[in-house]
Amino acid sequence: MENYDIVIIGAGPVGLTLSTSLARWGYKIKHIDNRPEPTATGRADGIQPRSLDLLRNMGLKRQIMAHDPAKVYEVAFWDPAAKGIHRTGTWASCPKFIDARYPFTTLLHQGLIERVFIEDIEKHGGQIQRPWTITGFKNDGKDPVYPVEVNIAHVDGTLKETVRAKYLFSGEGARSFVRDQLGVQIHHKDPIAHVWGVMDGVVRTDFPDIKMKCTIHSDAGSIMVIPRENNMVRLYIQLASSTDKDWNPRKTATQEEVQSHAKKILKPYSIEWDRVEWYSAYPIGQGIAERYTLDERVFMGGDACHTHSPKAGQGMNTAFLDAVNLAWKIHHVESGFASRSILNTYESERKLIAENLLNFDARYAKLFSARIPSAGEVGSANTQAAAQAASQHEPEENEFIKTFKASCEFTSGYGVAYDANIYNWSPAHPAQSPLFLSYQKGTHLRTGRILTPATVTRVVDANVVHLEQEIPYNGSFRLYIFAGTPAVSSGALKDFATYMTAPRSFFSTYLHEDEEADRYHERHNPHTPFLTLATVVALPRDEIEIDELLPPVLSRYRDHVYADDVWDARVPEAKAAAHAKIGLDEEKGGVVVVRPDGYVGCVVKLEQGTGTVDALNAFFGSFTGKSMGGADAKL
Amino acid sequence: MENYDIVIIGAGPVGLTLSTSLARWGYKIKHIDNRPEPTATGRADGIQPRSLDLLRNMGLKRQIMAHDPAKVYEVAFWDPAAKGIHRTGTWASCPKFIDARYPFTTLLHQGLIERVFIEDIEKHGGQIQRPWTITGFKNDGKDPVYPVEVNIAHVDGTLKETVRAKYLFSGEGARSFVRDQLGVQIHHKDPIAHVWGVMDGVVRTDFPDIKMKCTIHSDAGSIMVIPRENNMVRLYIQLASSTDKDWNPRKTATQEEVQSHAKKILKPYSIEWDRVEWYSAYPIGQGIAERYTLDERVFMGGDACHTHSPKAGQGMNTAFLDAVNLAWKIHHVESGFASRSILNTYESERKLIAENLLNFDARYAKLFSARIPSAGEVGSANTQAAAQAASQHEPEENEFIKTFKASCEFTSGYGVAYDANIYNWSPAHPAQSPLFLSYQKGTHLRTGRILTPATVTRVVDANVVHLEQEIPYNGSFRLYIFAGTPAVSSGALKDFATYMTAPRSFFSTYLHEDEEADRYHERHNPHTPFLTLATVVALPRDEIEIDELLPPVLSRYRDHVYADDVWDARVPEAKAAAHAKIGLDEEKGGVVVVRPDGYVGCVVKLEQGTGTVDALNAFFGSFTGKSMGGADAKL
Repeated sequence: MENYDIVIIGAGPVGLTLSTSLARWGYKIKHIDNRPEPTATGRADGIQPRSLDLLRNMGLKRQIMAHDPAKVYEVAFWDPAAKGIHRTGTWASCPKFIDARYPFTTLLHQGLIERVFIEDIEKHGGQIQRPWTITGFKNDGKDPVYPVEVNIAHVDGTLKETVRAKYLFSGEGARSFVRDQLGVQIHHKDPIAHVWGVMDGVVRTDFPDIKMKCTIHSDAGSIMVIPRENNMVRLYIQLASSTDKDWNPRKTATQEEVQSHAKKILKPYSIEWDRVEWYSAYPIGQGIAERYTLDERVFMGGDACHTHSPKAGQGMNTAFLDAVNLAWKIHHVESGFASRSILNTYESERKLIAENLLNFDARYAKLFSARIPSAGEVGSANTQAAAQAASQHEPEENEFIKTFKASCEFTSGYGVAYDANIYNWSPAHPAQSPLFLSYQKGTHLRTGRILTPATVTRVVDANVVHLEQEIPYNGSFRLYIFAGTPAVSSGALKDFATYMTAPRSFFSTYLHEDEEADRYHERHNPHTPFLTLATVVALPRDEIEIDELLPPVLSRYRDHVYADDVWDARVPEAKAAAHAKIGLDEEKGGVVVVRPDGYVGCVVKLEQGTGTVDALNAFFGSFTGKSMGGADAKL
Repeated sequence: MENYDIVIIGAGPVGLTLSTSLARWGYKIKHIDNRPEPTATGRADGIQPRSLDLLRNMGLKRQIMAHDPAKVYEVAFWDPAAKGIHRTGTWASCPKFIDARYPFTTLLHQGLIERVFIEDIEKHGGQIQRPWTITGFKNDGKDPVYPVEVNIAHVDGTLKETVRAKYLFSGEGARSFVRDQLGVQIHHKDPIAHVWGVMDGVVRTDFPDIKMKCTIHSDAGSIMVIPRENNMVRLYIQLASSTDKDWNPRKTATQEEVQSHAKKILKPYSIEWDRVEWYSAYPIGQGIAERYTLDERVFMGGDACHTHSPKAGQGMNTAFLDAVNLAWKIHHVESGFASRSILNTYESERKLIAENLLNFDARYAKLFSARIPSAGEVGSANTQAAAQAASQHEPEENEFIKTFKASCEFTSGYGVAYDANIYNWSPAHPAQSPLFLSYQKGTHLRTGRILTPATVTRVVDANVVHLEQEIPYNGSFRLYIFAGTPAVSSGALKDFATYMTAPRSFFSTYLHEDEEADRYHERHNPHTPFLTLATVVALPRDEIEIDELLPPVLSRYRDHVYADDVWDARVPEAKAAAHAKIGLDEEKGGVVVVRPDGYVGCVVKLEQGTGTVDALNAFFGSFTGKSMGGADAKL
């Protein structure tokens, strides 16, 4: 019987993201899918701005963009008018008040996205075993290292395998064998279910917004228009609702019926199909699994845990982030960087996001079905939101602006905010120090949210780069040392380096074991696989001599030393825009800890003495399960 | 005997660029190369900012960038110091006064670049026949359509072919059989020749600028450092010069000698090689062919026509532009869009560029060998150049600033400026009208230079796009109608559409012959292969209803209608930044004609009446060889 680190069931977005993550970090994976090949047409297709950040960080964005996906920058709203329909306004998918690198949704069919992941998995020596399915599993603990037994079989029943694994993951989709076996219930936030018809194809039309995302309400019904790659357009039509008198969840409609329905809705405009690539009609309700794991050995994610209407385009994006959240936590437990207990943060973090998503989905639907906001209202909400973002204060908001902002944050993916916990510092965190900064005090960053993007100049080669993308998706915590102005901060920097390299510090605890290995060309993890360090200096590039300004432990990461000297329109008066956007003093700087998935863990003042490292020792000590720092760590 | 449109000899950058261009436009090509396979290592590697624009326009940039090339933003200068060498300053490759999308040089070895082209050629049904060589040719005119006979053979002599062609092109490199056979002489601008040693490899060093482009002068000699893809670095070392007392053009040096030499030059820094991928030593002199063609049937380009030192990194870039210049001219002659006589503009345009390049090469060398400018001098030259660029006036310049600007323009590729001729309007052009605008009067564009980049919003899908890239490299002239504000310009727009669609206009003369063909999905050439139209309206996107604002002939190009509503830091006060950068009135607009290779042909006022179209009829009439417009064209 063969042993694996993990058995992954299902090669949709969640399973593939988990697989590619763990394959890169050296884990032994058995990955099966019950389909003979990847998705050929249709299914999910919307990649949010935040997900594109993630795909870029994983080194997969270029392959996605090579397919020339459609990009949605705005959503248009159409309503009944005297003669058919008229446009009542448009709404940016990701308005300017959100500081996004890619302020658009990327539309590409799921099969092409799956193939990008599969190629990456194969590049790292993995593969998907198809068409195989799971037939049974138990966490019987017979082997303490590989406690889970998993039975799999070829879908035709001719072949069977039994393997043992440290973990089992179900990315099976809404109909999950694993979830059923575990007896995990699905809760329905909104009891209303719908039958949707979806059609991808190439059309001829005089409807002027056919290349925009549109929500169209007409007296003949409603439709959603989404542009696609390859000159295609997707139409979503709601065919039935559980609020209908004659509700039948098995209601369906032929392709021709849906086309004829679409023609009526779009009047006075005409529409004809050159070809239909994919058509499907399916019932869907809002649902959320009550648990994502029972034993922290058998996990579930993606559609197995949450389903909702396709309108907000969230499914695949939530799946990506489920997988990433779990991947680095398993990696840290298995590498000894974290106590096993932290695995409970997978469910607590990701289930909250799914709940927020379902709540949002309902609110979003209500907002638009109740009353379409006018272009003027949207414009003014946008302006106010931007003004509030610029003022960097907790705003007072009316309900409409709140919903508007939340909608934009959700549809862009930047609405994902994890609550305070062991990884996301708050005043209630076990790590206590007056040096911790918070959104209320000392920084514009919020823990549990992603690092604000910032453009800086890499010192070694003068390349203008995106700071938030510079450290790749390598499973390490990211320590950004905003070094301020060395004339002011050099003492603090020196002390930081001294105490960070002292015995039993968060840094020294996880040094590479094979000290003699040749790491000359290692740019990201020269000292420890647990951390990658980056230093941002508030000086023009040509005034930065790395070896003179930085202590050796920081200058060792010379490919990660940046000049904060690029002007930014969002902080036009700032001399050091990255410091300013993050809300750190341009002279004194500060230290930002970012989790391997890009979310901010904590922000600490950079001060002379032991305080900065003490605070970080306490923070890291809280989840590594090891006491860090202490008297003997002070040299 | 088989007939071809063209026989291309050599599959280096110039031959491949010509081949991919003509393959896309449907020509039948015989393309041979005497090497058994593409360049494996070494050779040219620098892609200038301007060339990257071109590669993007050809749809090849993404494939190039997929190889993760090094990017050079700055050049560092190192000089002798008390203990070895010290940095005296840095200089941007493409400073801010140049309005470039990609202000960096892209470094990637020639073989990877060649493969990108070869894949594209194969996608369009072409292939390279290897290893085959040319053994003879004559323009005997025996077949008036295919006047050139070409003899080719397998390099081992076992196989031979004789074919006939409309054109023969030599992209054979510095040692050109075709050039020799034609008896075309090489002139040497600068009689000094050099022997260069070049080495690509992975190094270990404490030299801080190893990831920058560096020019290093030390008491032990000189070296040039160029970073590469794959963590490699290229070193150029001048091994001998014809000014040496013991000059020997066959002088060479072993790899070890060059490494030992480099170690001495770099002191006090150390350098060691992990591996050497490529090493070569070769003599090179500045030379230029006195003719690029004798009969406008047999053409040459690339290194067959011009050689120079590798220091300025111009070789491959000049080759790209040679090929592009020739490609669309052959295409236009063969499609009946131009008289055969325009083929003489290939030599007149491209030879001038080569001469300028060689002059620059000498000046550039002198500038730095005579005296290294201080960082302060460079900084102040940069500031003054930027101020002059902003003021948009012909500047008064001192010698140093002139050379500085010319250097930057040359190294970035934006120094390519074609003189006035039949394609580049000037007051001396046969087309005469008071409506023509010039850099001195009415526009900031200069004919013979590329279109200024501008960011705009595409109306149909609200995508923020790069206007200068929107029309692909399709062999068509590009007509940019800057429509100003329709409240002011609607009459002029209407007249423009009316007279443009009148019989015998530049537009109507080349309408598709098969009028009945289904062109619903044709975005770029719905009316004629000769022209692609784009309209830029000085209004916010959401105020533009394409079908209401534009005459039908312009709204037909709905994928090429843009809102000039994106703020630009270079014209911060402008309401319509693209109009402002191009120097056209934000209310009245104007029409810009851009050649298929991206260079500006002419700029015309947009006025009510027949004047605008009259001017364009005269302009296009001058090289199409057809009388355009006239009394019967006025409806």
